[in-house]
Amino acid sequence: MLCRLSRLCRSLSRPTGRATPVVRGSLSRSLGLSSQRRIPEFSSFVARTNTCGELRSSHLGQEVTLCGWIQYRRQNIFLVLRDFHGLVQVIIPQEESAAPVKKILCEAPIESVLQVSGTVISRPPGQENPKMPTGEIEIKVKTAELLNSCKKLPFEIKDFVKKTEALRLQYRYLDLRSFQMQYYLRLRSQMVMKMREYLCNLHGFVDIETPTLFKRTPGGAKEFVVPSREPGKFYCLPQSPQQFKQLLMVGGLDRYFQVARCYRDEGSRPDRQPEFTQIDIEMSFVDQTGIQRLIEGLLQYSWPSDKDPVMVPFPSMTFAEALASYGTDKPDTRFGMKIIDFSDVFRNTEVGFLQDALSKPRGSIKALCIPEGAKYLKRKDIESIRKFAADHFNQEIYPIFLKANRNWNSPVAQFIMKEQRLGLMRLMEIQEEDVVLLTAGEHRKACSLLGKVRLECADLLEARGVVLRDPALFSFLWVVDFPLFLPKEENLSELESAHHPFTAPHPSDINLLYTEPEKEDVKLLSHLLQALDYGAPPHGGIALGLDRLICLVTGAPSIRDVIAFPKSFRGHDLMSNAPDSIPPEELKPYHIQVSWSADLAAEKSSLNHPHCPES
Amino acid sequence: MLCRLSRLCRSLSRPTGRATPVVRGSLSRSLGLSSQRRIPEFSSFVARTNTCGELRSSHLGQEVTLCGWIQYRRQNIFLVLRDFHGLVQVIIPQEESAAPVKKILCEAPIESVLQVSGTVISRPPGQENPKMPTGEIEIKVKTAELLNSCKKLPFEIKDFVKKTEALRLQYRYLDLRSFQMQYYLRLRSQMVMKMREYLCNLHGFVDIETPTLFKRTPGGAKEFVVPSREPGKFYCLPQSPQQFKQLLMVGGLDRYFQVARCYRDEGSRPDRQPEFTQIDIEMSFVDQTGIQRLIEGLLQYSWPSDKDPVMVPFPSMTFAEALASYGTDKPDTRFGMKIIDFSDVFRNTEVGFLQDALSKPRGSIKALCIPEGAKYLKRKDIESIRKFAADHFNQEIYPIFLKANRNWNSPVAQFIMKEQRLGLMRLMEIQEEDVVLLTAGEHRKACSLLGKVRLECADLLEARGVVLRDPALFSFLWVVDFPLFLPKEENLSELESAHHPFTAPHPSDINLLYTEPEKEDVKLLSHLLQALDYGAPPHGGIALGLDRLICLVTGAPSIRDVIAFPKSFRGHDLMSNAPDSIPPEELKPYHIQVSWSADLAAEKSSLNHPHCPES
Repeated sequence: MLCRLSRLCRSLSRPTGRATPVVRGSLSRSLGLSSQRRIPEFSSFVARTNTCGELRSSHLGQEVTLCGWIQYRRQNIFLVLRDFHGLVQVIIPQEESAAPVKKILCEAPIESVLQVSGTVISRPPGQENPKMPTGEIEIKVKTAELLNSCKKLPFEIKDFVKKTEALRLQYRYLDLRSFQMQYYLRLRSQMVMKMREYLCNLHGFVDIETPTLFKRTPGGAKEFVVPSREPGKFYCLPQSPQQFKQLLMVGGLDRYFQVARCYRDEGSRPDRQPEFTQIDIEMSFVDQTGIQRLIEGLLQYSWPSDKDPVMVPFPSMTFAEALASYGTDKPDTRFGMKIIDFSDVFRNTEVGFLQDALSKPRGSIKALCIPEGAKYLKRKDIESIRKFAADHFNQEIYPIFLKANRNWNSPVAQFIMKEQRLGLMRLMEIQEEDVVLLTAGEHRKACSLLGKVRLECADLLEARGVVLRDPALFSFLWVVDFPLFLPKEENLSELESAHHPFTAPHPSDINLLYTEPEKEDVKLLSHLLQALDYGAPPHGGIALGLDRLICLVTGAPSIRDVIAFPKSFRGHDLMSNAPDSIPPEELKPYHIQVSWSADLAAEKSSLNHPHCPES
Repeated sequence: MLCRLSRLCRSLSRPTGRATPVVRGSLSRSLGLSSQRRIPEFSSFVARTNTCGELRSSHLGQEVTLCGWIQYRRQNIFLVLRDFHGLVQVIIPQEESAAPVKKILCEAPIESVLQVSGTVISRPPGQENPKMPTGEIEIKVKTAELLNSCKKLPFEIKDFVKKTEALRLQYRYLDLRSFQMQYYLRLRSQMVMKMREYLCNLHGFVDIETPTLFKRTPGGAKEFVVPSREPGKFYCLPQSPQQFKQLLMVGGLDRYFQVARCYRDEGSRPDRQPEFTQIDIEMSFVDQTGIQRLIEGLLQYSWPSDKDPVMVPFPSMTFAEALASYGTDKPDTRFGMKIIDFSDVFRNTEVGFLQDALSKPRGSIKALCIPEGAKYLKRKDIESIRKFAADHFNQEIYPIFLKANRNWNSPVAQFIMKEQRLGLMRLMEIQEEDVVLLTAGEHRKACSLLGKVRLECADLLEARGVVLRDPALFSFLWVVDFPLFLPKEENLSELESAHHPFTAPHPSDINLLYTEPEKEDVKLLSHLLQALDYGAPPHGGIALGLDRLICLVTGAPSIRDVIAFPKSFRGHDLMSNAPDSIPPEELKPYHIQVSWSADLAAEKSSLNHPHCPES
């Protein structure tokens, strides 16, 4: 079995106003550091005895040395010190003998780096802060050292201070100090570590690094090129280790995985990164079920302990079912409102436009029931949905409002006979105050339309207070039996690959690569095709997009929030100003030169701003 | 403490004829899979019940399903099946009813992929093979399936069949099937996994991925460039995550590590790879001792269980001591033969050339004692050493043979007074039959010369049967207190950085970057310099070259053997033929064109061989 594909998906919609998952000032709880797992020694090898965030009543009387940043100061009496682990209150000594310590603690600018030593003491009765994990104690300081003074900052390091994303990216090293960013990056590290334990220690996978300086792959128009010192010869940065993982199976490595850096040059696209990471997996002698069980176990094992556990096995749905019931290959199964097919109910209709629709190839009649839609959806919502259908799908949507007296209020009510009404009501279990949205058209198109309408209606209902999708619920689902090809969205008469573009060819299709001469790129793959002849074992694999997975797990607003140093949507590093100009003499060893068009050359000479900030 | 540097080194010399560390046919023992550590489930999720290599007498009577490659066949009676784990003998059934199974097992070409099911039985008495871990049992087959037939191979997959490295690299996917390559790659994976456990689970390090599409760094002439879609703008592939790891410390991440892919374009150099991997580490609030203890613990924890355990702490030596005693910054301390300074002994010499040497700045007289050198070193060895000294160091080396009668046989014997002779004999503990090699000159130059001579003599002694360096011994050593700058080898009056070129500037030197205007590259680092002003904690770090480390641990002949898909010394991937030509239209989006020189263009048009194999 070469590369039978399944797609693992979960609901991608994210409700607005989702609560932040971090307890402010305490990262330890949300990261499960206090669970039964062994707590790492955060203070080994360094000068401090403890982290700021870990001190509790159980530490009372202990002499501690802490290192951290000045979060804030109150009336020259209290100073709050911060490290990655949390906040702790330090008492600024007022006695004359401690004047040098007082001077340091009072004069160091906010965000300066301090080392303090002292005793953990109880806060005076009534002054405990139950909202702060270290709120029962404070530090009576003996010595203090200013390790590094901080210059005036471009913005305050406070979670509540709103910053533009461009500013955050320009000063990423300051943005990283926020508890939110610390949570995202630490959770990512922990989750990947658990995945490695599962794959490597529990199931005998071999972590193998594959090259990123490689050869162009067929259809590699999205691959970055890297000039070599040989004139006219280029490496390419691969979009995935697909070829290598298959070659490793041919090489008998049996079980491979890699947390693989991948590259894709898609120009400017929101929420895409030119370099990204995937958990890349390949196994020999496996079938589709084996891969499914492996991935289910992987997610279950690596799932953060502060979230509801992952239940396995995941439910499974064919691509055809997903399309028919949800109008998409990545259905959000956290709520109902499925698409229902009424073609049979209307098979004998005498209504012209319904007859028309059914007489065409794969013609169908579909509907969606919005529970209590009459109560929550406004007339203008329905109009906007109908306009969307007309503009983007060239389709009509007919709303049916079910009145309290079970009468229908709808432009199509007059066309629908009683027995058809009964069929609809029975199949959809329609209740009073529900709204039914009906459409007639080609199966795939009608489903796609209603799939989008379904999500739009869910957003509308939630905006009006209906509880529909639990933001903390992860409804994993396997979508299986993908077709090899699907009609292109822009032109339904043409086909395009329905798979991830780096899926290897199905064995029965490999001949096509040899025999169809217009596939000019075959020589680029000749080593792989040859390898498959030399005793290749049956094998299968999968790749999980890590950035997106962590983004979903943490509820981060963007994949840029789960990447330490992301690029902007235009592919820029706003901190260092990459990509950047390079002097022509440094390009010489690579035998390339910039091909300035006349326009560009003129523009270049008139530009005096090498660093154009993004909005 | 910003980047006080220590260098961790071990003896790099490798004796010839070192025994291969792999028990042929059994990978499990050498990988420590049978130790007290939990054994991974190698057969989860797949059709097989067991691996070929794991079956023992304890499995007798079990019904098993195995998948593997046909290693060899004997007289159509036995077939040996191989997987990554080892070999197992399968009995080809001879009875009429099993004719279809017999046909498959007898006709499938060697290296074809089979799945067989059957019963584990004892070998008949006297037919056990004690050299084979599965040698007590064999498989009585019930069913067999040919999963993939193998075409005629370019070479046999047998460890004893010698292949050129170019052939091995061209068919890397076949080369990987050897037990040797399986051992290297699996040991690498396991050792890295243990390092991750140590850093992440035991000591709270955060695994953070940093970008590889970045900005040119100062002095980045060895950085590959990656053209972007913006005219004239390039990313660079960084030589290390040095800037990012420091920025992460400024960002309060506290403890960072990454198994980091790095890039360095050094053109064609033996035993270098254009992309390589380093274990990259940075900590806040740490001093040099902290880093040393961390790394010692890291190596001890991750050390393969089939090797002698690593003893900690490692001994420490200053750079000055290493130079003075071993003539190098990476001394092989597995054997003696240290360089001894005799300047004081000869302080009052009246011999002209010795006086001359001592009168110059840092002038010195040094010597090396080769134990039993008179017995093992030939006259022509000494001549060759003297010629090397003259050719490469412009120095004289004076040999002194200590005769059985304690008389000296040496061209310099006549110049050396009795008291000086006694001083030499006392300081060096010279014995009969020893040879002393004496030189006079500038301290560093004389030491460097004798350091090289020391290793050369060790090779010579070992070639003649003297046991000097234990190949299984790892003599770890910290070399500390490196100078910031050293005289350039090619021109002693000029200075060059003595550190890894990507060491960050020492805090006291940062001003130089601002104030010395000829350092044109300062703007390339402005983001880092700015970050250091915004509350940067004191921090320190280290990077271990992973490829070289695994190469040393496994005793692999080349770093190419511990990399799954290495490049040739010319930077080529011989399997896929990368780097390769790219059509000009695919370069257009990147606004670059190849600058063919007139010569090259002519050469290009006359060449009809796109794939020029390397030797």
